[in-house]
This record gives sequence, structure tokens and C-alpha cells, in this order.
Amino acid sequence: MAAIKEACGLFGISSAHKEPIGFACHYGLYALQHRGQEGCGIALNTEGELSVHKDLGLVNEVFPRALSVDEEHTRMAIAHTRYGTSGERSRENVQPLLFRHHMGSMAIAHNGNLTNDAALRCRFEKEGCLFHTTSDTEVIAYLICKHRLATGDIHKAIELAMDELEGAYSLLIMTSSLLIAVRDPNGFRPLCLGKLDDGYVFASESCALDAVGAVFVRDLQPGELCIVDKADQSLTSSLVHCNAIKSSLCVFELIYFARPDSVIDTISVHQARIRSGSFLALEHPCQADVVIGVPDSGIDAAIGYSRQSGIPYGIGFIKNKYIGRTFIQPKAGDRESGVRIKLNPIASTVRGKRVVLIDDSIVRGTTSKRIVRLLREAGAKEVHLRSSAPPFLHPCYYGTDIDSRKDLFACKYDHQQMMDILDVDSLGFLLPEQVVKLSDHQGIGFCSACFTGVYPTAVPKGASNA
Amino acid sequence: MAAIKEACGLFGISSAHKEPIGFACHYGLYALQHRGQEGCGIALNTEGELSVHKDLGLVNEVFPRALSVDEEHTRMAIAHTRYGTSGERSRENVQPLLFRHHMGSMAIAHNGNLTNDAALRCRFEKEGCLFHTTSDTEVIAYLICKHRLATGDIHKAIELAMDELEGAYSLLIMTSSLLIAVRDPNGFRPLCLGKLDDGYVFASESCALDAVGAVFVRDLQPGELCIVDKADQSLTSSLVHCNAIKSSLCVFELIYFARPDSVIDTISVHQARIRSGSFLALEHPCQADVVIGVPDSGIDAAIGYSRQSGIPYGIGFIKNKYIGRTFIQPKAGDRESGVRIKLNPIASTVRGKRVVLIDDSIVRGTTSKRIVRLLREAGAKEVHLRSSAPPFLHPCYYGTDIDSRKDLFACKYDHQQMMDILDVDSLGFLLPEQVVKLSDHQGIGFCSACFTGVYPTAVPKGASNA
Amino acid sequence: MAAIKEACGLFGISSAHKEPIGFACHYGLYALQHRGQEGCGIALNTEGELSVHKDLGLVNEVFPRALSVDEEHTRMAIAHTRYGTSGERSRENVQPLLFRHHMGSMAIAHNGNLTNDAALRCRFEKEGCLFHTTSDTEVIAYLICKHRLATGDIHKAIELAMDELEGAYSLLIMTSSLLIAVRDPNGFRPLCLGKLDDGYVFASESCALDAVGAVFVRDLQPGELCIVDKADQSLTSSLVHCNAIKSSLCVFELIYFARPDSVIDTISVHQARIRSGSFLALEHPCQADVVIGVPDSGIDAAIGYSRQSGIPYGIGFIKNKYIGRTFIQPKAGDRESGVRIKLNPIASTVRGKRVVLIDDSIVRGTTSKRIVRLLREAGAKEVHLRSSAPPFLHPCYYGTDIDSRKDLFACKYDHQQMMDILDVDSLGFLLPEQVVKLSDHQGIGFCSACFTGVYPTAVPKGASNA
Amino acid sequence: MAAIKEACGLFGISSAHKEPIGFACHYGLYALQHRGQEGCGIALNTEGELSVHKDLGLVNEVFPRALSVDEEHTRMAIAHTRYGTSGERSRENVQPLLFRHHMGSMAIAHNGNLTNDAALRCRFEKEGCLFHTTSDTEVIAYLICKHRLATGDIHKAIELAMDELEGAYSLLIMTSSLLIAVRDPNGFRPLCLGKLDDGYVFASESCALDAVGAVFVRDLQPGELCIVDKADQSLTSSLVHCNAIKSSLCVFELIYFARPDSVIDTISVHQARIRSGSFLALEHPCQADVVIGVPDSGIDAAIGYSRQSGIPYGIGFIKNKYIGRTFIQPKAGDRESGVRIKLNPIASTVRGKRVVLIDDSIVRGTTSKRIVRLLREAGAKEVHLRSSAPPFLHPCYYGTDIDSRKDLFACKYDHQQMMDILDVDSLGFLLPEQVVKLSDHQGIGFCSACFTGVYPTAVPKGASNA
Repeated sequence: MAAIKEACGLFGISSAHKEPIGFACHYGLYALQHRGQEGCGIALNTEGELSVHKDLGLVNEVFPRALSVDEEHTRMAIAHTRYGTSGERSRENVQPLLFRHHMGSMAIAHNGNLTNDAALRCRFEKEGCLFHTTSDTEVIAYLICKHRLATGDIHKAIELAMDELEGAYSLLIMTSSLLIAVRDPNGFRPLCLGKLDDGYVFASESCALDAVGAVFVRDLQPGELCIVDKADQSLTSSLVHCNAIKSSLCVFELIYFARPDSVIDTISVHQARIRSGSFLALEHPCQADVVIGVPDSGIDAAIGYSRQSGIPYGIGFIKNKYIGRTFIQPKAGDRESGVRIKLNPIASTVRGKRVVLIDDSIVRGTTSKRIVRLLREAGAKEVHLRSSAPPFLHPCYYGTDIDSRKDLFACKYDHQQMMDILDVDSLGFLLPEQVVKLSDHQGIGFCSACFTGVYPTAVPKGASNA
Repeated sequence: MAAIKEACGLFGISSAHKEPIGFACHYGLYALQHRGQEGCGIALNTEGELSVHKDLGLVNEVFPRALSVDEEHTRMAIAHTRYGTSGERSRENVQPLLFRHHMGSMAIAHNGNLTNDAALRCRFEKEGCLFHTTSDTEVIAYLICKHRLATGDIHKAIELAMDELEGAYSLLIMTSSLLIAVRDPNGFRPLCLGKLDDGYVFASESCALDAVGAVFVRDLQPGELCIVDKADQSLTSSLVHCNAIKSSLCVFELIYFARPDSVIDTISVHQARIRSGSFLALEHPCQADVVIGVPDSGIDAAIGYSRQSGIPYGIGFIKNKYIGRTFIQPKAGDRESGVRIKLNPIASTVRGKRVVLIDDSIVRGTTSKRIVRLLREAGAKEVHLRSSAPPFLHPCYYGTDIDSRKDLFACKYDHQQMMDILDVDSLGFLLPEQVVKLSDHQGIGFCSACFTGVYPTAVPKGASNA
Repeated sequence: MAAIKEACGLFGISSAHKEPIGFACHYGLYALQHRGQEGCGIALNTEGELSVHKDLGLVNEVFPRALSVDEEHTRMAIAHTRYGTSGERSRENVQPLLFRHHMGSMAIAHNGNLTNDAALRCRFEKEGCLFHTTSDTEVIAYLICKHRLATGDIHKAIELAMDELEGAYSLLIMTSSLLIAVRDPNGFRPLCLGKLDDGYVFASESCALDAVGAVFVRDLQPGELCIVDKADQSLTSSLVHCNAIKSSLCVFELIYFARPDSVIDTISVHQARIRSGSFLALEHPCQADVVIGVPDSGIDAAIGYSRQSGIPYGIGFIKNKYIGRTFIQPKAGDRESGVRIKLNPIASTVRGKRVVLIDDSIVRGTTSKRIVRLLREAGAKEVHLRSSAPPFLHPCYYGTDIDSRKDLFACKYDHQQMMDILDVDSLGFLLPEQVVKLSDHQGIGFCSACFTGVYPTAVPKGASNA
Repeated sequence: MAAIKEACGLFGISSAHKEPIGFACHYGLYALQHRGQEGCGIALNTEGELSVHKDLGLVNEVFPRALSVDEEHTRMAIAHTRYGTSGERSRENVQPLLFRHHMGSMAIAHNGNLTNDAALRCRFEKEGCLFHTTSDTEVIAYLICKHRLATGDIHKAIELAMDELEGAYSLLIMTSSLLIAVRDPNGFRPLCLGKLDDGYVFASESCALDAVGAVFVRDLQPGELCIVDKADQSLTSSLVHCNAIKSSLCVFELIYFARPDSVIDTISVHQARIRSGSFLALEHPCQADVVIGVPDSGIDAAIGYSRQSGIPYGIGFIKNKYIGRTFIQPKAGDRESGVRIKLNPIASTVRGKRVVLIDDSIVRGTTSKRIVRLLREAGAKEVHLRSSAPPFLHPCYYGTDIDSRKDLFACKYDHQQMMDILDVDSLGFLLPEQVVKLSDHQGIGFCSACFTGVYPTAVPKGASNA
């Protein structure tokens, strides 16, 4: 039940005439809502004219009614869901961003985080450029614009921009005639391609292809650039930035961010989580009566633990699905533990039992502590906590909102202290060497820097590993 | 994945001084949102003055901000969530209803359906009474008012009203000084009592007690009337209408309506559903590779089937929890099957497998047919459908919105036809004689008239069993 | 610039087929918005089925989009704007009220105030009737219902109800087939009749007839009852309750409530206000350089004063028309006088001049005092205040929200004290004997009880003239 | 009753500690709402940090509740109301615009229109700059930024930008420490300075100073640049761009745009309109019984005509002040003339009379035609139309939304044709030589290019006088 946030879901579509673009964008956004709940938006291409519709809020808040679209003439669009970090909720930063220019307008949507953002921004400002947002996406737009002016070609401009960009970026870019998808050479963030009868879909996760009835084709390769031309719905691919090095897919996509029904870089997210449970059962066995998972992302690993260990799987908690963003929090204090509005244990599952509890990760420890207490109050005799992520020890520079080291549970306490604080009978984490084996596909490489401190790229200047 | 609707969730609270009444009502409503999503409301008692706040919409729509309550002087409240039937969405019918009268105002919230509503309403209209709503709850209020005028006593008035009321009714009634809970003598609808440090809570389901940190005390007996006096927070109970006959708890509360973490009439809803899965595995075994449930209420039974049969349990579908009431439906038609926005199968669970699929019920067959098709498209080799409810054959007069016979799947087709239409390899229903054994408590009786046609009360005049 | 409030605007329409009923109701409500800004509503008759749409708020808040109406089958409607008194803003009380009954549903809209409301309500409650609202309109509905049950005839029922009703009531009543308009025998509140090509319109003021392009026919006589039959758009009139006594039109309708472009009981409101200015000039002359009026309702009287006196008319203030109900008030205190957001003087009109200032009335004196100060600050050399209403000395029981005696300026202070407090060089009120001469039509009688204490009906029991 | 639109209202404030900045901005915006109703916004300076709050809509829609401001630390702000042209309603263009830059952020609000906008924008785009808006204000921001980078000084940067800017611009610019006001060297748009006890206010019109209780100091000179330093609330003025040529105040500010209670460039708007009425009475006398004005801006001129001619002034129309932006328009067609929802004549004023009707201008003729028809229907015997603006014959390049020549009434028809179309008995326009005499202050020059075709600056390249 991680509270970690990450940057964004991407959805792009081009269809010659059959697909209702407005509806498709809605469905795509709904399917990717879990990747970003601060804001969302849709940029439309209507006979070459670009327009954008976006705001802070969930999809059903920003688009309470179907977006009115001239379906006959609007045949291309990109859409975006954005995550929210506290204090930075600003309407300006909601994407897609739309830039108007006499060489042609451009809409852009971005998932990831640059590591050389500050340096590039400073350079552009010194050249007299003005920024409207605090987003690194605007930096990407400026880089592309600069090279487009120089070369007169959007494709070349993006390739040249990629030479300068460092860090994590999956991009969707829409011009008056093209839909362009880009994945950074490390492949930090996912991006996949789907086929329609008369066009193409790009999406952060395959579940968004399913949502519009598109057929999954493949993941973009790290460094790949795909272009769909509105004129003839032709697809071209450029592999200039694909290099020999192993990819660096963020392992937390598998553990927590992605939907279990998605397949990312040939890996079924659900199966990867099942595997994490099996690893945990092998590495941290225990004698118990029931295995339960913390909803939603601990459930799959719990099934894996149960299968491997033979201990029966049970449903330990009901999560209230009506609690929305505007939920009025209970006052802090002693009575908090008694109030079980978001997560309520099923006593009949755990009463008098030795319980294995699987959570997706332990970041600050506060949530885990509270959940263990709920189980104790419901009558659990023993609680054996297993985390399907290794301990967080290092900051992330690629778009994941992991606390600074001083707040990280595993940085502050040793194993025994953690057990005491969490009030558990045993505690086990997935090993960092196991986390990169969650895929059953040997060819996929991972970034697990937050666990190991080994970063696949240079880190931002001035960043201390603290 | 029944689309059957039922009437309402009740929550009432009285606390001498500690409990923040406004927050408690919000939490109670959130916990009971699954019982009614058309509208909701809260009636407050502020130093004897009653006021009501309500509207059409979900809890977070009706109360986007915390209801402003004078917490010092507001020490009693009742709240209500209401279900929605098409065409009848009217703000007037949202509860609690508030009636002003020189003998004292009265707020009333109701779960259930009277069977002699029409006759009583007609009688009152002939006496010159005016009705503002189309709800049978207003009839109950008139009956109580009539007897209150005659006797001058609200307790006696309710007892006398109960002599005349027929059908299903769990009630919460609030006057300037009393909080009164009533359960009809058949006990069709649930109602339970919880204890606070300095007061009491009544709720349709125990999960709402958990939500406010109240300690479960017991279910109200069928026919019981409980009164909490604001003056001293004393609780008195009247058993005048409790009779020797076995209770008639609506069995669909266990199968579908209630939350799995609730305990109703001593039965854990989760365990009852697990039992239904075990019965299905015993009665309708099959050779298969994985057991999956249709979310949300088929999940528990699937675990039961898996445990009994030894066939591994798996997660077959992801349900999109962001799809709200305002979701824009895809256009009907061929492409519908390809659009998997609300429910998406996890292909890695079912591809190439023989699948046992557990659903909570099959009403019209259309949803089941679509779900089976999703599994086939995801690569399932065989689909064996099991329903944890018997076939629906008879109308319900107690507040459950079951289709008329001519639309009921099981009334229109024989077993082979059903299998052909649903495109399943085998099909099995829970037996009516098993459905009343879902409780492991011998003393609890059930109404299963919708399966058997045996009604525990007289049916409305003019009602044909069609 | 009176802050006095009064009850409500009425609009009813019946058209065989030409008039778009939904639009007509919107226009009617906009035209009558000045008579009530707390809430508004529309009751529609669609092939005999009644429905109601209403809420708290201004017309453009309650109906931000055009009400969706089946224009072909909806051929009759009544609408209502309601005024707001502090603390009583309740959605229940917004009209039209809709009552369902097996003898036929009935919608009712009411302007005025009964004087025997409490006695009637008590009588009905003792007979077992329940009230949903605190409005006396519900009492009228009960009376009509009682007699309808006894006689089986809605027309007779209303006539019999009128025998029992005391006080002020203009009514519009709609059944499945009839549109009925009633004016109380004293004619306290206005009500007029207009003609469409294929139907009729009733409205509180003739400006609402203009708004829908209806031709003014005549005012209803005090005590008259008009019925339009939907079947053939025939109009019948009953004069049973029309008696010989002189009418008692609320004189404040002319002075303040009504729109200047309305004609009420043959009197042009604009001309009546011009006449009030002429009376003031004759009775309270002064030597001055310019005559100005306080917007909006002092403007006409200022023109009258100017014409009679020969002193030039000028525009002294600009009123900010964008200040809505949600305007955030400045904090009280010294700086208040400097903040001129709602009303700003035009310095060039008054600087160095002797100014005659005409206001419609002086209730508490606070507003007048503030306005005089604005003029002084803008450079006025002398300020001669004239009020086009006599001093308020007595309470109103017919629906006008006049302060209790202890707060009335003219009850608390003598003439010199008033001049001192207001800081004016002279002060003059219209005489009570002049106020009944505002009409140039001899046959019209007025209620001016708030000035004279002479009430045209019995006053409510227990009411002290305080 | 011109439908001509113009660009925007400006309000800026700096106060050491006394003035509540949030409230002041609300009041300023309300006072300037008439200058722009498409959108509005407020930029705050909170201890040097800039933030902006803005949206499409009226002030009470964008700020339904008081903007939450840290009043202690927020001591400087600028605010803006924006006008709406059809088809261009975009949230991006709502001001103030906020630009973030490492040299310091900058908020900017603009009233007017550049004539060399396109050339400047193109130049910047070629240098690699990206534009978020279609507004020429962003061009101004880029110019300032360019020079700020070069000089490192915001004051010098603005002066250098003014060397390159052509056309109409009144500006408010806020940095982390300064509030800067600029008026273009022609003085097309107004801008004035007011004094608070502990700070300063700038506003487009003096009525906004009144709204916050500021004391009017003076108008900014054409070409003047004023800087208020937050550190010590000191005011400095630069006259570098003030030149000897006569100013070019848009004469339509006096005729139509400004509020009558404002004083612009020493001219009372109210008095200027009175003077226009006097000129009309001298130039186009007629024998009539009453003079009326079309609300709101024809009223003052009607009083002037009355005073000069001796014909009595009357109130001819009531304008419905509740009709908002969301008003549902009646369907076009014949019945339109009968529906008098926005503007209703007072029949008693005009029936049987010879009427002089004063309107502020005649652009397309359609509105005037309709108003004359209303008067005829209300019984006017003769209608003599007088326009307090000369005939529109030429386009405006300085921010006023005047129709292209082909739609202008006076370009299409000769005098007799106009009279026939409008159905008036006589027709008279203010003379172009009179329009520049509306001020009684000899030193003020005007732009009246729309009447004369004589433009005070070079016109945009490619602009044909059509």
C-alpha cells in the first residue's frame, strides 16, 4: 500500500475514420487513471488544428460530460493523466502542453523525469526564453523547437533533442499531421503500441489498449521513435537511439505502479507480482494459517506466497472504493486506530490465526504499522509481514516520488527495531537480486537504484545520495 | 456481478459528548455507500431542533466538504443512503424524511418495502392527507403520526403502527429527544447495534460500526424496537412484536448486497460466500486449471470453490475503480465486446486454461455472456460457469429490484439453452436448499422467495406471480 | 434603497401548441426575479403529468441551462420566484409545491401571507396531517384538498377554501387539466392576465407578460378566481368572493417592490413614483441645484421632484450591477465609508451643489446615513433628503418583511434627531394621506397599515402592534 | 447600446501592511467588470513569490468565495478583467500572465492592442521562443525579458521594450519586489494612480480607486512609467517616453467603455456624455415631447439633450439586470420583437408622444432597429434617433472590436436608407469634430480614427482600410 507517486500515463491515438476519438481518449484516460490523479487532459487534432482540454482533477471531474468532439474531422489525439505531489498542484503543469509556433503547433505529453532539466532550463532562459510551467516537459519542447528551427524537420529535431536529454522520458508528441511516440534509451518508463483497424494507439500500459479494443503490437524499444502520419496512417520507426546496453525499466512499475492486467516489456504485471510472492515464500518462509495481501497491489503477491508455501490464501481486508480525493480525513489521535473507514479487516479470516501479511513495500512504516494493528485488533495471533519490495535506501531521480533518506524507514532503523515498531512476529523483504528477476524474460534489464544505489545514468549535479 | 438493486443503508448515532457527530455520519455513509448510490442524507438533532441535509448523488458529491455541524450541541443524528431505480430518481424521495408537527418533529429513514403500501396510502388520502413523495416511508410516518395523536406517546405509536405495517422495514426514527430503531417482525433487512463510550450506534451493517470505531453489540431481533434517550443515553428495548416464527432474512444480503467484512445476524458475509463456493464445488464439480471470481462479490465464492476443489485460485479480472456514475457509456454494437474499460481480463491467468468462473448470480444473462466472451478472447480453453445464487424465478415484494419473470434468464430458457447462449462448457447454480444453509447458525431463517416462490408474508393485492 | 423583502413572483402559462413553455417560464422568471431572489422553480404539466424543478438560487443559478422540456406535450406550467429572509433559507420551502393525491396531483404557487396560518395548521395537525414545509402555502393546499375530497370538485374546493383563508394570497394552482389563478378578496398582492394567440398567461406583474410577448388583458379583481382549461384553452371567471369593499393593494408594491415598467391595477408603477416625487416637491420644497435619486427605485421619484420643482435632474450614483448574492462583504468599520463598491457617487454631479436626494424609504436609517456621507465626501454643499414613503411605524402581517417597531428609525427618533443622525440639511417624508393618491385611478384602494396602523383585516391572534 | 468590445481592465495595488490585498483585488475587479467579462485573474506577490489565480468567467464565477490570501505576507498584487470576442474564448489568454525565469518571475496585465504584434512574434519564434498564448501580451513579455537579460535591469528593460512596441498598451507589471505601471506614448487606454495611507493603487478607471477607498492622485501621462518599490512603498516616475505630441485617448472610452462615475484624463465621463447630448441638441434639434436614453450609456447623453433642448427627460426603458452571460436566447424569428426580456419600454412614458431617443452609437443597426420598434409598439407617435457617436467608417487597430467595413451600418447605407431601415422620423449623429470636444480640457487629444480614418500611428502591415 505504497503512497509513492510517479509521473503520469500517456495515451495517443490516430484513426483514419472509424474510431470515435473523443470516446477513445476518455477510455484511455480511465484505464490510466491509476498512474496520475492530480489532473488530466486531451489534445485534439481537428483537420490539423490543435486544441487542448485539461484541468486539475480526476477524469470524471475534468470531463463530467463527454468532450464535444467533431468526430468526423478529429482523427488524432493525445491524452495524459498526471500525478500529484503536495504543494505543487498547479493547473499550468497539467498536460498535454500545447505550443503555438509559426512552424506549426505542437502538443506534448511526458512521463518521466529528466536529470539535466535544471541545466537545460537555465541555458534556454539565458537565451531569452520564457517558461510558463515548472515542468521539465517545457524544456523538452524548447529543445525540439530549437532543432526544428535549425533543421526544418520535426523528426530530425526530436532525434537531436534526444542527444541532449538525460533521464527518463516516454513522450507523445502531436503536430498538425503527425503522432510521434518516443521512449528514452534507458527505457525507464513503459510505452507500447497497439493496432486499430484503421490506425494506431500508443499507451503507457497495455490495459489502455484493451480499453479501446486495440490489439497489442509490441512495446517500444528503449530509444525508439515511432511516427504515425495522419495522411495515410502509415507507421515508421527509427532506432537511431536504441543502443546495445540493457534496458532500465523502473522495477517499481511491476511492483506497484502498473495495473496487474497490463503487460510491460513482455512481462505480465500480475505474474511478476505472483513471482515476487513465490520468492518471498522461498526466502522468508514461516509457519502460518493464512496468507493475506494488502489491497490492491499486495493481493497478487499474496497469492504467489500461498501457492509456493501451501498456506491457504484468504481475504483479509475490504478497501472502501468510494473514498475519493475529497474524503474528509478523521482527526489524528488515539481514536484513529478504531476508525476503519478506508480499510477494514475481515475478522473471520484472521481471528485466532497466524497470518502472513504481504504488502507491496514499506516506505515510512506508518501505514504498515497501522495495518498490523488492525489485524491484531481483529484477533490475529501472529503477524508475519513480507514486503514485495526490498528496503528503500536511495533517492530516485527518474520521476518516482520516494522520500529523502532521512524519512525512509529502512534508513532509520535496523531489522529488530523495524520489527518492534511494526509489532510483527517476523519481517522479510524481497532481496534486491530477486527484484530484477521478477520478469521471466532474460532480456529485460531493470533500474533498481532506489534499493541498490546503482544508477543507470549520471545523477543530477549537486544531488547527494541523501 | 448482479445489477440488482436494493433499498438503502441506515446509520444512526447518539453520543453524550465525545463523538463528532458530523464526521461519524460521513464515515457511516461511506461505509454504507454500496447499499445505495442514488442519493443520501443526514438528519441532525441540535438541542432538540431537527434539520436535514440531503440530495441526489454519491456521498462525496452530496457532501463535498464536511457538513458544518455545531458539534457541541448536535449529539444525535440519522443518515441514509438510497438506491436508484431508473426513472424514479427524484430529490423528494431522498431520505431521511423530516416531518414537522406541533407534537414534535420527526425524521425517519427506511430500508425495505411495504407490501400494503398502496392500501394504506389510499386510506390516508381519503382522510385528507397530502403526500409529497412517492415513497412508502411517508405512509409509515403518517401511521405513526396518527397513533401519536391518539396516544400522545411516540413509543406506543410506533408499536401500534407496526400492527398495521406489512412487509419489509428496518427503520431509524429521530425525535427531538429520542433515537429509535425498528426491525420488522420478519427481519427481512438487517439492523445492528453498536456501543460507543458514551452512546450508541445503529447501522444496516456492522462495517459501519467499524467505520466509526463502535463496538458491535448485537443484531436487532426481528420485531424489536430499541430506544436511545438523548437525556441520559439510556437504551431500552421492546420485544412486543418479536414472535416465535423463524426469521426471514433476505438471502441476497449474504450473496450480493452486504459487504464481505460485515457480520449479519451472526453470519460473516465473507464466510457465507466462501460456503457458497464450497457448496458449488461439491454440487457442480469439474476438472479445471484455475478458479476465478467476477469482482467484487464473486471473489469470495471463488476462494471457497478453490479450497473445496483443490483447483488453484487466480485473479481473472481487474475492475476499474475509477468508473463512476457519470461514466460515458460506449455506444452499443459489435465493438462493445472489444472495449474492456470496466472489467479487463488478466490474460496470463486464463490463457490456455480450463477456467471455473464464479459469479454471484445470473439475472438476465447479458452480463454473464459478455464476461464469458472476454475470457474466450483472452484465451480460456474451457469456461465452467457457477452461480452462487439459484436461478431467479419469482418477483420480490420486499425491496429488491428483481426483473419481472418475462425478463428473467432462468424463466425464459432451459439449462441447455442457457449454456448455449452463455457459450459455457458447463453451468451450475447453487441449489435453493443450499442457499438457506449459507449461515452456519441454525437459528437464522431466510427469505428465498425469489428462488422458491414461497413468500413469508401475504403478497400485495393484485400481484400475480409473474 | 429599501432592504425590505416581500413574498414572491408568480407566472403561469397555458398554450394550445404554439408557445415554447420552457422558454416562456424562463423569461417569466427573469422578469420577476426582482420579487424574489432566494429560490425559484417551475412546475410542468406534460400530458396531465405534473413535475417540478426548483432549487435555492437565482434563476440563472437554478436553471444554468434551458430546462429540458418535451415542448410538444408540455402545454401548461406555473413558475415562482421566492424571496429570502435570513435564517429561513430552506430548499423545502421553494415553490411551486407539488402534492400527489389519488384524486389528482396539484402544484401550487403563492404570493402573500395568511393571517390565520397558525390556527389552520394546528387544526390540520390535530387531524393527523403531516407538514413538510414551514410555509403557509402548505396550509392552503390542505384546505383545498379537504374540500376537494368532500365535493369532488377543484373549483368548489378553492371557493370553500377561500371562505376560510384570511390575509394576503395571490395563487396559481395547476392540476392535470386546469390552470387556476386566485386573488384574495382584499387584493393585497397583484395578479394580472395576459392573452397569447392560443392561450393565456397569469403573472404578478405585467412586465412578465411583456417578457413572453403576451398582450395584457386586465388585472384580476380582488376575490376573483380564473380557470383556464387545457382541453380547449377556455377561460372562465368566478366573482363569488369579489365584494363591494374597496381593495387593499399593498402601497409598497408601487413605491418599491414592482418594476417601473409594470402596470398594476391600472396604475403605471413608473408614473406612481413620478407622482410621489411631485407630492414631495409640493409638500417639502427646498432651494437646491440638482435632484438625484438613489438607484434603482428612487430614480423615478427624483424625476418627478425635478419636474415639479424645476430643479435640474441629475445622476448622482452609479450602482454596480455585477455585485451578486455571493459578493464578499467588506469588513465593518471606519474604512467602510471609503469603500464605494456597490454605490459610487458621480462627483461632477454634486460637487459644490445643494442636492435634493430622493430615496424610496427610510427603514433603519443606516443605509440613508451612509449614502448621505458619500455625497458629503463627494463635495455636496447641502443634502436635502426626501423619502417617497411615509415613516414606517407599524408591522405588516401580509407578507412584507418590515422590522419590528423597536428597530424602525421613525419609531425611535423624532424629526430633529433623525436629521442629526442622517446629517441632512432637511428631511421630508411623503404623507400617509398622499401615499394612497399615488394612483390616478380613484377606484383603487390601498393597504397602508405599515404607516397608519389601520389594518384592512383582523390581525393574527397574539400580535401586538409592536 | 453598443455591442462593441474592448480590451480589459487593470488593477494593481501595493500596501505596506494595512490594506487587505485579497479583498482590494476583488473590489477592484468588480469595479472594472464592465471592461471585460470573458475572464479575470489576480496575481499575488507573497514575500516575493508570485502566484496567479484566474479563469474564464465573471468575477463572481471565478472567485465565488474570497480568494484565500496570506494577508500578512501578501502586500502587492495585480488584477485583470478580460473582454471576450467570439471564438477566441481560451483559458490560456486570461491574464495576468505569469512568467518564471531565473532572473526573477514576472506577472503582466495588459490593456490595448499592439500594431506590430505579428512582426515581433515572428522574430521571437525564429529565435526559438515558444508561445503559449495567442495574446500580444506574451510578445511584450518576451521583449522585456530580452532586454532584461541584456541589461540586468527591469526598469531599463521596459524602457527599451517601449522603443520597439507600437500601438496601444497600458500595462501593469509585477516582479518579486516592484509594481510597475506603463502607459503607451499615445495614451490610447487610460491608467490612473491612487494613494493609500501606506501604498499605491493603479487602475484603468478612477471608479476602481473609489472601490478600495484610495484617493485619486492623477492619470499617468502618455509614455509615463511608474514604479512602486515594495521595500519602502516609494514611487518613482520616468518620463523618458513622454513626448510633446498630443495624446490619443480613445474617444470611445468616453462614449461607451468607461463607467460614468470615472474621471479619465481629467474628464468626467458622465459630463462628457452630458456634453455629447448638448451637442446633439444643438446640431440636430427637433420638436418632441420627451427625451429618453437607451440604457446604460445613452442615459447621460439623454439628460444632456434634455437640458439643452428643454424637452423633458423621461425613463423609456427598463433593463433587466439579472440577465447574465448564460441567458438562454430566444429563438430568432418574428416573435422576437414581441419578447421584451432584456429591455422593456415604459409605455406610460412614450405613449402618444414624440420621442427623442439617444443611443451611444449605431454599429450594425440591428439593435437600434429593434429598439425603435419597441417604442412604436409601446405607442410612440414619432421617434427621433440621435447617436452620441459619429458614424463608424474605419477599422480600429488599438483594441476595439469594431466590425469590418462591410458590416458597418454607415458604410453600407446613405442617410435616407438608414432612416428607412431604422424606421425613424429623423436621425442625427454627433459630428467627428464634436467628438474631440467632449472634454472641457483643451490639452487632451483623442484618437477618433474609427470615425475619421486618421490614425495616430502607423497601421499594421497588410491592413487595408476595409
